[in-house]
Amino acid sequence: MANSIYPPYPPPLTAEQTEYLFTTLKDWTIAHGLAVRPAPGFVSKEQDPSGVLATTAPVTLFPSLFPRSCFDEALSIQELYNEFYSRVARDERWLEGIVNELIGVDDFIANLWRIHLEVKREGYVQDLSLGLFRSDYMVHINDEGSDKKLQIKQVEFNTIASSFGGLAWEVSTLHKYLLSVDAYPGGPKTVPMHGNLATSNSVPGLAAGLAVAHKTYEPSNEFNRLCVIFLVQDPERNVFDQRHLEYALLAQHGIRSFRLPWQRILQDTEMTAKRTLVYRPPHLPDLPCEVSTIYFRAGYSPDEYKSEQDWTARLHLERSRAIKCPTVLTQLAGCKKVQQVLATPGKPPRRFMCDGERLAKLMQTFMPMYPMDDGEAGQEGKRLALDPESANRYVLKPQREGGGNNVYRKKIPEFLKSIPESHWPAWILMEMIEPPALRNAILRNGEIQEGGVIGELGVYGACLWRSGTGEEGQGEILRNFEAGYLLRTKGDQSEEGGVAAGFGAVDSCCLVDL
Amino acid sequence: MANSIYPPYPPPLTAEQTEYLFTTLKDWTIAHGLAVRPAPGFVSKEQDPSGVLATTAPVTLFPSLFPRSCFDEALSIQELYNEFYSRVARDERWLEGIVNELIGVDDFIANLWRIHLEVKREGYVQDLSLGLFRSDYMVHINDEGSDKKLQIKQVEFNTIASSFGGLAWEVSTLHKYLLSVDAYPGGPKTVPMHGNLATSNSVPGLAAGLAVAHKTYEPSNEFNRLCVIFLVQDPERNVFDQRHLEYALLAQHGIRSFRLPWQRILQDTEMTAKRTLVYRPPHLPDLPCEVSTIYFRAGYSPDEYKSEQDWTARLHLERSRAIKCPTVLTQLAGCKKVQQVLATPGKPPRRFMCDGERLAKLMQTFMPMYPMDDGEAGQEGKRLALDPESANRYVLKPQREGGGNNVYRKKIPEFLKSIPESHWPAWILMEMIEPPALRNAILRNGEIQEGGVIGELGVYGACLWRSGTGEEGQGEILRNFEAGYLLRTKGDQSEEGGVAAGFGAVDSCCLVDL
Repeated sequence: MANSIYPPYPPPLTAEQTEYLFTTLKDWTIAHGLAVRPAPGFVSKEQDPSGVLATTAPVTLFPSLFPRSCFDEALSIQELYNEFYSRVARDERWLEGIVNELIGVDDFIANLWRIHLEVKREGYVQDLSLGLFRSDYMVHINDEGSDKKLQIKQVEFNTIASSFGGLAWEVSTLHKYLLSVDAYPGGPKTVPMHGNLATSNSVPGLAAGLAVAHKTYEPSNEFNRLCVIFLVQDPERNVFDQRHLEYALLAQHGIRSFRLPWQRILQDTEMTAKRTLVYRPPHLPDLPCEVSTIYFRAGYSPDEYKSEQDWTARLHLERSRAIKCPTVLTQLAGCKKVQQVLATPGKPPRRFMCDGERLAKLMQTFMPMYPMDDGEAGQEGKRLALDPESANRYVLKPQREGGGNNVYRKKIPEFLKSIPESHWPAWILMEMIEPPALRNAILRNGEIQEGGVIGELGVYGACLWRSGTGEEGQGEILRNFEAGYLLRTKGDQSEEGGVAAGFGAVDSCCLVDL
Repeated sequence: MANSIYPPYPPPLTAEQTEYLFTTLKDWTIAHGLAVRPAPGFVSKEQDPSGVLATTAPVTLFPSLFPRSCFDEALSIQELYNEFYSRVARDERWLEGIVNELIGVDDFIANLWRIHLEVKREGYVQDLSLGLFRSDYMVHINDEGSDKKLQIKQVEFNTIASSFGGLAWEVSTLHKYLLSVDAYPGGPKTVPMHGNLATSNSVPGLAAGLAVAHKTYEPSNEFNRLCVIFLVQDPERNVFDQRHLEYALLAQHGIRSFRLPWQRILQDTEMTAKRTLVYRPPHLPDLPCEVSTIYFRAGYSPDEYKSEQDWTARLHLERSRAIKCPTVLTQLAGCKKVQQVLATPGKPPRRFMCDGERLAKLMQTFMPMYPMDDGEAGQEGKRLALDPESANRYVLKPQREGGGNNVYRKKIPEFLKSIPESHWPAWILMEMIEPPALRNAILRNGEIQEGGVIGELGVYGACLWRSGTGEEGQGEILRNFEAGYLLRTKGDQSEEGGVAAGFGAVDSCCLVDL
């Protein structure tokens, strides 16, 4: 955490102003579905067996300050990122190299690759892929005398189940509403909010992405009905986030969707001889529905694959003619190892973007990352990680998906020495992003917590592409657009986290010129 | 309860269909604010001290069947009713006669009249009145060989705090959504729903009523800001119903409103020498706001007037130059005694509508009502009430506002004999409305109850009028329109009730031609 670069914020409130803000926020959020189902620790299953209670989603009371130049840059490069990752996902030969490095340490990656190989052997019958991506950044203060003191640096790039698009749209509307009803009073010395609150287009944006895929899909004409499948976890506390996309898909595009729980894939879907995927709604088994697009809001985490049956289900979907959002290859393109390889200093990933100027724009957002293996970059990584002084600027992340906690700064050398060197390649070293200090207040489970916060900006992108027949990135992009943003804010005492994990809150941006 | 006149309804559902309907409904209602704060018996204050939990409002799973002819008639006569009751409210001399009959039995009415007299002595400074009315009906099966077998008959006419306009609009949208996502399956033999679900315009309608008053109000030009006051109970579980009107008022008309708790009238408002009402928001005491219109969602029940201070507060508002929705006189026009006098057989209320044809339309909706006093109609009332055979077609209602329970049918003679005859004039005898049998399912607090139901159709009306200088109904109507509908449905085992009281549910109409 660097020093603050922002003016004093948020504005101080009297007790009456806090009460007014809180009451207005509590009612607006429920009236507009900025909500979650309550955690079991708040409302037990016994108390509410049919699950009718809901509560305000974790939100910030104020929109957080965010440098306008960083915000604009992040949104403006999203189409480049969409294109870039679409190319990574189409480059099977290159991905194979990555996977081979991981197969020993990561069963999950190995199993995903196995799914790909099985479908490849049989032959893919759908060459369209939909990506609903989210590129996550933090603002970084560059102290090394660059002319750009404030930069956005990428935390990660999500290629599957990028969540909070529904709530991000809502929270940006909430903060604007609160401003319009004087819930953010402030004299002439406070930060001007009017005209500076950024609306997120994430609901219309992501719904438009799904609609593009649905309309591009070529129906078999064997069925009267065509639908999108939201593949979901069950139960899902964050259900309203997803529902807002369903409602927009129906209201704005006239497209029906169904929620298919991860556990019910094999019961509720079947495949024709031509591998058209057919959803048979349990409530209307006589009205089967051809699936144009599968939107994965489940199946992203190793925890969800509890038995071979879950892998059978994933294979079943991958084999089908439905457009996958994402395909297995696209999911693999989002793994940490890929990000590390792309961001390893001195090795610009020209393979995926030959235009140097465009690639440079992306690379400006990379934070240096190193493997911990025996290669050239790995040697440098080990040196940086073992020296207590340099280690203090780094974080050590596990390569494995869903695999353990990060190790921060001074704890890195000691940690490495506590494990066999043969295990080091399972880790990635990344330079720490140093965000400017900022304050806000977060509402969670009815409690307001005030203090220092860290914001993470996620930019959504939608991209539909057609794979080529080759194995090295051939194909073409059919549609590509930026699709709104998310600001996630958490207390600065926690180094891990995200709203879903129970740490942070959804937020929106109050843009400032610095 | 008469025999059913409807086709079989609702359609039978499989377990999977019930599950789909329930899940879809639960999520949609929270995503769209068709919600209430949970009752203390469901979620205690200790569990949720800051009140962030919410639950689906009591709703029906299906839109209830309703005869199209009755629905059309009820909506089409609302403007007549608005005009009629506006005239009653302007006829001080006639109301005085009513009040004089009640003063002995009803302190509440006596106190309201006292407020009126005090303001009259000083002189009223606002001749505009806003009525946001709701006329409540049930469908009545006429077995007496009339050519109109199905008729709507008025249960009551509400001139103050007519609630559920916010939720009525939502529930009609909910039922249409459920139909659009196949939550109401049914073969060719079931009642056709497509094209027959009636949308309620209650939110835009009632908000437009408030906007008309606000824009007609002549500002003092002493203050920069002008607002509408929602005068509310605190706490209020039905807060989202009201919030939807606030949001529409701001979004559709650009009009700011504030929620003023009943207990805080004297703290938070003051009056200028010219009796302009000024609201001083506790959160922004330096930004006073001139009040154009006071929308009463509190102050309607005797229970709310706990001490003389509450009456002082009511007088304070009534004296002011703000437009009242309603004035004290308009509130008095809605008392049961007025309804009884208007609906006493053989005494058409020509005083309020001289056009015989128009009056006849209203009178068709009256159910015969009798006083229980010594006058001519009272004698007839006593005869009907004491004869066990005729009593079986009647209900005995207390005249007093908020005063005790109704006595039904065969229990009437016995009840009357158990109290002194001198107390009989405190009651009103009304012929029972005999609604057709109907079935539906209601969701309340997470439980689904299925069975026989009774529906009550409420039609909202908005009316802005200017009183004349005289005392007998002079003045003119400036705006008058129907403003949407509410269907409230309750289990047919309860003879009392309403959704707020904890008995029923909000519903919408599936219109049928019979």
